[in-house]
Amino acid sequence: MGIALGTPASAELVAFKVGTDRAGLGRLMRLWTSDIVALTGGRPAPGDTAPELAVANKGLTVTVGFGARVFELTGQKPSGLDDLPVMKHDRLDPAWSGGDLLVMVGADDAVSVVHAVRRLIADAKPFATPIWRQNGFWDSTGADGKPVTGRNLFGQVDGTGNPAVGTPEFDETVWSKTPDWFRGGTTLVVRRIRMNLDTWDELTRSEQERAVGRKLSTGAPLTGTAEHDELDLEARDADGRPVIAPNAHARLSHHSENDGRRIFRKGLNYVHDTGATRESGLIFLSHQADVAGQFLPLLARLDAADALNEWTTTIGSATFALPPGFQPGSWLGQSLLG
Amino acid sequence: MGIALGTPASAELVAFKVGTDRAGLGRLMRLWTSDIVALTGGRPAPGDTAPELAVANKGLTVTVGFGARVFELTGQKPSGLDDLPVMKHDRLDPAWSGGDLLVMVGADDAVSVVHAVRRLIADAKPFATPIWRQNGFWDSTGADGKPVTGRNLFGQVDGTGNPAVGTPEFDETVWSKTPDWFRGGTTLVVRRIRMNLDTWDELTRSEQERAVGRKLSTGAPLTGTAEHDELDLEARDADGRPVIAPNAHARLSHHSENDGRRIFRKGLNYVHDTGATRESGLIFLSHQADVAGQFLPLLARLDAADALNEWTTTIGSATFALPPGFQPGSWLGQSLLG
Ligand code: HEM
Ligand code: HEM
Repeated sequence: MGIALGTPASAELVAFKVGTDRAGLGRLMRLWTSDIVALTGGRPAPGDTAPELAVANKGLTVTVGFGARVFELTGQKPSGLDDLPVMKHDRLDPAWSGGDLLVMVGADDAVSVVHAVRRLIADAKPFATPIWRQNGFWDSTGADGKPVTGRNLFGQVDGTGNPAVGTPEFDETVWSKTPDWFRGGTTLVVRRIRMNLDTWDELTRSEQERAVGRKLSTGAPLTGTAEHDELDLEARDADGRPVIAPNAHARLSHHSENDGRRIFRKGLNYVHDTGATRESGLIFLSHQADVAGQFLPLLARLDAADALNEWTTTIGSATFALPPGFQPGSWLGQSLLG
Repeated sequence: MGIALGTPASAELVAFKVGTDRAGLGRLMRLWTSDIVALTGGRPAPGDTAPELAVANKGLTVTVGFGARVFELTGQKPSGLDDLPVMKHDRLDPAWSGGDLLVMVGADDAVSVVHAVRRLIADAKPFATPIWRQNGFWDSTGADGKPVTGRNLFGQVDGTGNPAVGTPEFDETVWSKTPDWFRGGTTLVVRRIRMNLDTWDELTRSEQERAVGRKLSTGAPLTGTAEHDELDLEARDADGRPVIAPNAHARLSHHSENDGRRIFRKGLNYVHDTGATRESGLIFLSHQADVAGQFLPLLARLDAADALNEWTTTIGSATFALPPGFQPGSWLGQSLLG
């Protein structure tokens, strides 16, 4: 999805089960590489059956990831890439979990996404079969047309605490270094998290703000006034109580409370209808150099104490290694499969 | 949805079963009116539990419709508003059919749609319960950022043959005149039409173009060169065969072959996933002054002979009267319920 780019308005993730060997995987990656070069350039993929649906300037991005089982065929698994252990609050549904390969397509509009995904699935046919697909959406544009962080379906500004793209912090957070083939790659954790909007709505606004430690209006910390103000985790109110509660989500997930460990998050809102009943939630996406070293301790900490747990339930989980980007003349995953 | 406005990038339709009387319906319409005034103005609805999700300048539009059963409570049903008879090719699923009330929300982005729909459903709670919801998307922007007609998931330009908004033809096509309360209203037929992309893709491009009678590249008639060129239904090729085939969709649906009857269509692409299996199609929306007089004869004609029937199947159907728009100080449906 172009990790350094903004969250797309429309996105789809597809996980596949692989039914081929190492050589077949290499063939698939070469196919996908030429598809991706064409589609992200706004041109039809080779053999495209609906070439007019490939439209330029739609901000189309495609990301491919390898699940743990790929490394049974290839070796050289990035450390810590296995399935995450099941957390106390998890209610994982196999229908949204796992996968040997991931394709994630994002764009400014849903037609472009649907079309690109269809081409990539079609070309995967001899090699890999979809096992789940998740659609999400995000709005990163404010009322004045300028970029904003965007909000999840609880109405919270979501994404503020991320390391800023391009800073040394960002690079250290996301880019992996080992094994050799994976230098410049990153890992992606996909968590499908159901959000109970009905019980959330029963809270007062100040209860909602306490649960995170940030204001709903601007996303500013309860100790500050602007979205990007640093959290003051020491601040106390007139009664001597911490302004940002001990179990506030933004406190527990803050790097200063996690031995400096950071992650880089993107969220996609989702809705899922069964008949007239709607489930709402967040497709939580986390990039980090090392899942076991950075993400897992944070996850465990939040699972143990996060105030938000009362209104959120993780129902899907999957972990992928995203190989380093390819250059002209090379192909996706070549450093692993070439 | 602002019938005269373009097709929104993101839209949702919700049909309700009514569980109240005439007075209750009036109360609901007054509630919805104030919701709609606020939401379409980019402001939170009264009592909004996630007010920050109401963002201005997102092109939000809301349309409300009355199904036939509403008129059992009120009388004065627009003529021809009953359920459409089942066509030979229909495979109607009750899960996508009927409904006493319709709410249709469109916007430039999906977060705004989801938020507005949630508010409208919440306020309907004492009066009406959702029975189905359908999400769709459309891309009316070309690669150069300029407005275009947009394409369905077969890749066809879809919407060209519509009467142009603002012309006398348009006004005659869509605005109803009777009964009195309904003057300046319009009717809406919602057909959920599954499209078999797999068998469609097995055709050659010229087979695909023959089925409609228009070119895939530009949407121009097979007898012309530009999208808005008139169809020449008399033209014959060197072998004396009609250039636009006798069963071509654009011929059979053309007003000149239908005693001058016209409709005003909008389409929304949809995808519907069951596990890893995806169904694709079109939420076909047709506006007309009179369903029985304009839409039904056309539908029957297409059902009998349309080349497209081989790749399309209607799986949902519903019909609504959209009351005339409200002015400041009045409310939605006041001419019927006030
Ligand atoms: C549906 C579930 C979740 C919701 C609604 C949610 C919401 C939020 C919100 C509103 C913030 C504050 C604004 C910001 O910095 O982005 C935040 C921060 C954060 N969240 Fe979450 N979050 C969820 C799940 C998670 C999970 C599963 C993790 C990791 C395991 C996580 C890690 C973080 C981190 C690292 C921060 C930034 C803290 C900082 O450095 O200030 N969140 N989240
Ligand atoms: C999935 C099903 C359908 C598809 C894919 C489809 C596609 C198309 C296409 C590509 C065109 C030519 C471009 C244009 O004028 O918009 C068209 C025209 C038209 N279609 Fe459909 N259509 C479908 C269903 C229907 C139905 C159910 C009706 C009405 C019962 C209908 C009525 C019309 C009309 C009136 C025109 C314009 C003809 C003219 O005056 O030139 N279509 N359709």
